[in-house]
Amino acid sequence: MTVELSDRRPTPSGVYFVADHAVCGDGRFVEVVRQAVAAGVRTVQVRDKLGSAARQLELLSAVARAVGDRATVIMNDRVDVFLAAHAAHALVHGVHLGQHDVPAVLARRLVGAEAIVGVSAQTPQQFDEIERLPPGCVDYLGVGAVRETPTKPDHPAPLGIEGLGALVASTTLPCIAIGGIEADDLPALRRAGAAGVAVASAIGGADDAHGAARRLVTAWGP
Amino acid sequence: MTVELSDRRPTPSGVYFVADHAVCGDGRFVEVVRQAVAAGVRTVQVRDKLGSAARQLELLSAVARAVGDRATVIMNDRVDVFLAAHAAHALVHGVHLGQHDVPAVLARRLVGAEAIVGVSAQTPQQFDEIERLPPGCVDYLGVGAVRETPTKPDHPAPLGIEGLGALVASTTLPCIAIGGIEADDLPALRRAGAAGVAVASAIGGADDAHGAARRLVTAWGP
Repeated sequence: MTVELSDRRPTPSGVYFVADHAVCGDGRFVEVVRQAVAAGVRTVQVRDKLGSAARQLELLSAVARAVGDRATVIMNDRVDVFLAAHAAHALVHGVHLGQHDVPAVLARRLVGAEAIVGVSAQTPQQFDEIERLPPGCVDYLGVGAVRETPTKPDHPAPLGIEGLGALVASTTLPCIAIGGIEADDLPALRRAGAAGVAVASAIGGADDAHGAARRLVTAWGP
Repeated sequence: MTVELSDRRPTPSGVYFVADHAVCGDGRFVEVVRQAVAAGVRTVQVRDKLGSAARQLELLSAVARAVGDRATVIMNDRVDVFLAAHAAHALVHGVHLGQHDVPAVLARRLVGAEAIVGVSAQTPQQFDEIERLPPGCVDYLGVGAVRETPTKPDHPAPLGIEGLGALVASTTLPCIAIGGIEADDLPALRRAGAAGVAVASAIGGADDAHGAARRLVTAWGP
């Protein structure tokens, strides 16, 4: 399959909302996404590490319907769920892969040239490996954790903003900082070279998801 | 993507080995598969429900290399792992989907017309739903559990051979019986209309995997 050129969204930048089922829950998942997008978030990743493929496909399809063409929609981990949603004509734009998912070079062959492929990376060795992939294979990196984060408690020691900056400086790919980020961190992360910031709990765990998203979008700036 | 016609294997029949990582373990996984195929097993499914996609891809690729063209190789659950292995030129032939995986009608679009698509089913309602799918969408059904099984302890009440026969009689699709099956059951299952029998523990959990597989192949008959 190939994703149509016209469907392609720009590489993620600014505030990137990781809509995590474990944070948002079933009942408010789509509503939280809707509020985040209404507040100016332009990239939404659907993450449901504990859900079946069928549930992940339902969430992804529901998010795609809810945001229409107002945001880039990325599927976490599951290339097949992304492909299935696309085959069912949902407006979805790419996949985000961890270090233990289908390798990026194979995922790129499966999703076609026009889909977005993001990869998580947090060590100089992983950055080196990604730099050696064919050009165009990976579109952006998710880099973290910047700070301790409740959604990924098993992560190694956080990078801090300085550590993040060193990694960002070592690649030509746009880097989305992730991990325990709050609004106050955004100016320093932007100065450190991040192309954007990904948050899960800061929006998905907020009582007022719209307000929380708005503060992040404002703190990042135009 | 499409799977080449020349790569296609016949619909599974006879003894179908579900090589389950939780039963076989890492160290002997490929060796157990090799012994099963040497004993006459002609279908091998790679099942690793707890493994990352990267590990599942490694297992699938290793099994494909080990069996060459001597057996049909089916991936459990993960359409993306199947597609990735195929994109990496491994000789793999299809996917087996549970009721909570990517829906068969979408999976068929992703794997192409020539790959094998199997689906698990165990209730009359599920059989009805599958009968209503487009012709050619599903190639065979995995039907069970016939008996209590250690690898799926959360299953509903087992069908028994009579219950299996009633389901088999309700469909035109070939049915592979699964769930706690031992060599002594094979003649009755064949008389009940099963096209084949799938086993996990009976081969993967045996001290002598080759001998266990041989007994099953013999009990099934030519």
